[in-house]
Amino acid sequence: MVRTLTTVWMALFFILLTAGFGATAEAPVSEATSECLDCHSISHPGIVKDWRDSRHATRTPKQGLAVEKLARRVSSESIPENLQTTVVGCAECHTLRPDKHADTVEHNGYRVHVVVSPPDCATCHSTEAGQYAGNIMSHAHNNLAENKLYRQLETSIIGKSRIVGGRVEYQRPDALTQADACYYCHGTKLKVTGLEIRDTELAGELEFAVIEGWPNQGVGRINLDGSQGACSACHTRHTFSIEMARKPYTCKECHVGPDVPAFPVYAASKHGNIFSSLGQDWDFKAVPWTIGKDIGAPTCATCHISLLVNPDGEVITERTHQMNNRLSWRIYGLIYAHPHPLEPDTTIIRNNSGLPLPTDLDGGFASKYLIGKEEMQKRTAEMQSICLSCHSDSWVKGHWTKFENTIARTDAEIKTATEIMQSIWKDGLALGLAKNSNPFDEAIEKQWHLTWLFYANSIRFTSAMAGGGDYGVFAGGRYQLSLAIAGMSDWYRERKQPNVGK
Amino acid sequence: MVRTLTTVWMALFFILLTAGFGATAEAPVSEATSECLDCHSISHPGIVKDWRDSRHATRTPKQGLAVEKLARRVSSESIPENLQTTVVGCAECHTLRPDKHADTVEHNGYRVHVVVSPPDCATCHSTEAGQYAGNIMSHAHNNLAENKLYRQLETSIIGKSRIVGGRVEYQRPDALTQADACYYCHGTKLKVTGLEIRDTELAGELEFAVIEGWPNQGVGRINLDGSQGACSACHTRHTFSIEMARKPYTCKECHVGPDVPAFPVYAASKHGNIFSSLGQDWDFKAVPWTIGKDIGAPTCATCHISLLVNPDGEVITERTHQMNNRLSWRIYGLIYAHPHPLEPDTTIIRNNSGLPLPTDLDGGFASKYLIGKEEMQKRTAEMQSICLSCHSDSWVKGHWTKFENTIARTDAEIKTATEIMQSIWKDGLALGLAKNSNPFDEAIEKQWHLTWLFYANSIRFTSAMAGGGDYGVFAGGRYQLSLAIAGMSDWYRERKQPNVGK
Amino acid sequence: MVRTLTTVWMALFFILLTAGFGATAEAPVSEATSECLDCHSISHPGIVKDWRDSRHATRTPKQGLAVEKLARRVSSESIPENLQTTVVGCAECHTLRPDKHADTVEHNGYRVHVVVSPPDCATCHSTEAGQYAGNIMSHAHNNLAENKLYRQLETSIIGKSRIVGGRVEYQRPDALTQADACYYCHGTKLKVTGLEIRDTELAGELEFAVIEGWPNQGVGRINLDGSQGACSACHTRHTFSIEMARKPYTCKECHVGPDVPAFPVYAASKHGNIFSSLGQDWDFKAVPWTIGKDIGAPTCATCHISLLVNPDGEVITERTHQMNNRLSWRIYGLIYAHPHPLEPDTTIIRNNSGLPLPTDLDGGFASKYLIGKEEMQKRTAEMQSICLSCHSDSWVKGHWTKFENTIARTDAEIKTATEIMQSIWKDGLALGLAKNSNPFDEAIEKQWHLTWLFYANSIRFTSAMAGGGDYGVFAGGRYQLSLAIAGMSDWYRERKQPNVGK
Repeated sequence: MVRTLTTVWMALFFILLTAGFGATAEAPVSEATSECLDCHSISHPGIVKDWRDSRHATRTPKQGLAVEKLARRVSSESIPENLQTTVVGCAECHTLRPDKHADTVEHNGYRVHVVVSPPDCATCHSTEAGQYAGNIMSHAHNNLAENKLYRQLETSIIGKSRIVGGRVEYQRPDALTQADACYYCHGTKLKVTGLEIRDTELAGELEFAVIEGWPNQGVGRINLDGSQGACSACHTRHTFSIEMARKPYTCKECHVGPDVPAFPVYAASKHGNIFSSLGQDWDFKAVPWTIGKDIGAPTCATCHISLLVNPDGEVITERTHQMNNRLSWRIYGLIYAHPHPLEPDTTIIRNNSGLPLPTDLDGGFASKYLIGKEEMQKRTAEMQSICLSCHSDSWVKGHWTKFENTIARTDAEIKTATEIMQSIWKDGLALGLAKNSNPFDEAIEKQWHLTWLFYANSIRFTSAMAGGGDYGVFAGGRYQLSLAIAGMSDWYRERKQPNVGK
Repeated sequence: MVRTLTTVWMALFFILLTAGFGATAEAPVSEATSECLDCHSISHPGIVKDWRDSRHATRTPKQGLAVEKLARRVSSESIPENLQTTVVGCAECHTLRPDKHADTVEHNGYRVHVVVSPPDCATCHSTEAGQYAGNIMSHAHNNLAENKLYRQLETSIIGKSRIVGGRVEYQRPDALTQADACYYCHGTKLKVTGLEIRDTELAGELEFAVIEGWPNQGVGRINLDGSQGACSACHTRHTFSIEMARKPYTCKECHVGPDVPAFPVYAASKHGNIFSSLGQDWDFKAVPWTIGKDIGAPTCATCHISLLVNPDGEVITERTHQMNNRLSWRIYGLIYAHPHPLEPDTTIIRNNSGLPLPTDLDGGFASKYLIGKEEMQKRTAEMQSICLSCHSDSWVKGHWTKFENTIARTDAEIKTATEIMQSIWKDGLALGLAKNSNPFDEAIEKQWHLTWLFYANSIRFTSAMAGGGDYGVFAGGRYQLSLAIAGMSDWYRERKQPNVGK
Repeated sequence: MVRTLTTVWMALFFILLTAGFGATAEAPVSEATSECLDCHSISHPGIVKDWRDSRHATRTPKQGLAVEKLARRVSSESIPENLQTTVVGCAECHTLRPDKHADTVEHNGYRVHVVVSPPDCATCHSTEAGQYAGNIMSHAHNNLAENKLYRQLETSIIGKSRIVGGRVEYQRPDALTQADACYYCHGTKLKVTGLEIRDTELAGELEFAVIEGWPNQGVGRINLDGSQGACSACHTRHTFSIEMARKPYTCKECHVGPDVPAFPVYAASKHGNIFSSLGQDWDFKAVPWTIGKDIGAPTCATCHISLLVNPDGEVITERTHQMNNRLSWRIYGLIYAHPHPLEPDTTIIRNNSGLPLPTDLDGGFASKYLIGKEEMQKRTAEMQSICLSCHSDSWVKGHWTKFENTIARTDAEIKTATEIMQSIWKDGLALGLAKNSNPFDEAIEKQWHLTWLFYANSIRFTSAMAGGGDYGVFAGGRYQLSLAIAGMSDWYRERKQPNVGK
């Protein structure tokens, strides 16, 4: 008898629980989106599920605007009336600004485009879109494609090899290889090349745009409205989950290799250990994110992007999608570490030799194009304000001193490697920039770029994240750096003085 | 007072909850299995816990047979009466077909064998066992052990080295090293070499078979009933958890290295990111698996094995344990990518030079032994039907075009590497196949197989999974491939023309 | 109406639930700790949250002492009265033994030190602190810093390179680089270099010790009371979570690189697969840890540290913080595998050549300093008692036979590599120990230490954990070992007989 009663209560309990969650399902869906769902919930159930799981499916922009400032996810001050009272569904995004998108087609009575761009998202999230336009990541396509030296590095890696006169020569890579390799992360340049009719199961013949460079979610994608960037690189369609964007796996998609080993270093750091061990109980959805309540250690987003408050609700740091607001040093991707560029468009940079590089070959800065000391200090202070939520002043200071020493030390090692390389070039044992040659494509030149493109980076990332010895030493760090420099030195000595040292 | 009442309700709530779970414990256990449990729950509590957590411990085959078709996990149309009404316990599997198993011994009144084989599992899961017999993985032992060229590659890697006349020579590896290395995944050949008496704590002196090659769960293990394969490679004893088999960590056991980096590539892909970030809330146990309901992104099993339905219960793709039903190209393990072999026994393949390889050294296919264009198209369509559950036609087509271009491009690069290798062989700077030599064992030959055994593979896996740039470029991809080819070219030029280029 | 009633019940249910958890919040906090919390919950909310989540914040030592033996986490027989009746808060640890700590300062009326040391923790956890003092890890700083050969290896990796006479030379690394690299894990030597006044937001001007080598949580840190070790290396401040210490991510912080790839090997092993796939449902907090109830596969801690019992509560193995109690062989870090050292201080070891190494260059043991056969057997039996909780005797025996064969085989391969190295030294093609040279710093010498410092280690770890083929073969295992030996052989032959083999 008692059991029966309990069963009744339990049943009620679960009904109510379910009802509680289900309530959001009553949020108003626009007629246009309803029509989309009619077909696509059958033909593409996966993405419809994603969307149904999303906040977009259960809140209207009007509700979003009513939220108090710090907890608000919608940053635009005003949102068009016609979008305010239905949830953000298929049609709300894919029919925005139809005249701007080259891939807009007539689709069951609607003018629909496939590729949603940051200016579309800016309808509700204008602050973030604006910040992201100032983020060097939004320029990732052009910064690579429009820099002659970087293009040469690209060619030396993903170009088509052939043997000419006993030597490897590289031709420019084809567009599909570029899209599959460098531009997967950097973003492709999309282009509508035509229209095609396809016979669909549910709606008969329909017209679609044929898009070169598609699919792609690279961070600096050139969109069909001419804009740069892809919000979906991190805010994965169609859940647009803040939980996902805040977890380090999202950053890992492009930051896992030895060129920029942010994820493996994080995962091996104390912070990553705490996340992996105890993170299952944290709150990754709370806005704002409260240190001392929601999480027990930072993820990538915590330090680089998120709005953080303390348990009293006081702001520790503001949200940013520019991302380098809290970064003084640029520690990877180029020959030497250097202060962050002033502008997200890095193609304008010239060093003292006129090369499109932020440093000279001896490490000197192209200072005109880089932030100054004051700005570096400001950004350092911003980052440290986060560290100081959990660490004492002496801890943070001690950490930073080590980090800046490591920047100086890795730069000194790279200078040793670069001097060997320059001697090799000078003695004509490799071509370098002579005769318009590609300075990155000979075997010994590849040994040289390994030292800075991989090893010095790994060491600095490890130091930056206080990430344990391994990635800074044995796992692509100082061990491999010292091995490569010793190898370059031997290579040079044996070819310069073939009878010495044998 | 209110608290006291609630406490009572809570207590009842939990009692009922526990009772609810516990109900399954009343499932009938056979007398034989009860006897097993008497000792083994004390002597081997870990595996008894595993079994108790398993579906095998809580359902009878009769119950399994009664389940409606799509949700059924038991594929045999008929199961012996004597096995139908008790749960699947220790004795049910370990006393099956005693005369067939060379390791069967008398054990407390029962004829028990240690190594359960696919034909044992086929008692209830005949369809899966049948499909798996057609899976190239079930031939993984013989395909390696019985191919002269592959054996030479094996010897060059795990053989015993010694210096003879200033050169490294390799002797065949010992059996224990083989079992610890290649055959850990490929599967050992088990053999009963004798019997031994052991004094056990709970049952006194007992007789056991001594089994060479044991323990092993490799996918192509040669069992003591002569059969091939080990279901436990993926369906880990003794939970046989479908949740586990569907998670990518299971595939990782053998697919994590640079020779076949499926797991690291997946984990860095968008799909892997979604799984890592949000998968904690998905249903990994549902049969059938419903896209648009149970999961938000595919795991390895989703694309390669599982029965998938859409939310209306319509089949998207049937379950398969042959695994290559959805694969047109074989993208790893050999010099060039090629269409999948027709037969799981690949020892029968001969290329135009009579070598047991599916391609010639210039990349031409041993077409007689490989699937044709029509079958490739059919398999491609089968795989794409899964993609299309979440992606538009243009997305899938765009992805596939990139993937097939990458296959062609990596093959072209490997052709460059192979031509250098052939020149080196021709000029006698390495022996290759001359004088019955091992073509894989000299340092420069190892540089060559790095290019296809590691780097081209990684690039193709990354492309196949749309897995981000890093594993296709910097993390063992195009970067390392171009470096290796440049290195081979330099090596050759300096030795062929020792005074050129210095 | 029914719903309303249920809502009331639900509310009560949750109130009680919360109250249940919250009850611990009433645990008595000392006045001193209350004062700490007044400021630090605002200035350092992150660590205060950590502590509030910890067992330390909710139990008094008196409660800890009252727990029955096997479940007790406090090992000291007696704890000072004044500490027994309040929870273990900030002040309880940071004001202990003030005269012993060189960093003790006057801080708001209390004598506070920053760096808590094992002797502080020993107040309640004396057994663990005692065991850890016998753990080779607690000597990790001195064992590296006070061994001339190891220091040379360190210099060859993290030293400052410069080109002198066409050759790379290394100067000793600076202290900050050491702290950022090797000593991040090994532990720094802390030293108070002065005092500084800082103006704090909440308490005005305060005095702090300036500590060289801080921050650091390396396992062999030399503390400011002269003690060795850091409990916080694994028991991360300020949760001191046993769950975290038992998860493999904690060990990963220092055991992830190719020099000691314990984590990647574990994660790719069957045990790691089970943990990754099903571990979310296990109990990582239970003391004692019950095999067959709490967990379905071992983590690092299970095999190396934890107190384990069977479901009847019988002890399978006792807790140990010495860690090598269950280890017969030392399989990494040095040229050959060898029995574990007798003493945690390894600086006293001398081989037959008088070098501070546990083996000769031909692999012979410095037996006087290493455990004997009997002790090896005892430790093996201790480890196997854990294996036997889930595996049969023949399984365990088969596994161990493979493992010991792999130790012998990797040592044989390293002997081949070392003989090539010795020939190179003998012929003067590299300096080795001649003229007081660093035997590790030339490019070819680095190729040599790669063979044992990386590859042989990885192979042995993989074998020890039955961890699949990849880390033992393709992912830094036998593949790379054979490649390196072939490369060394070619290097030597071409330089010794420059006209042979070209």
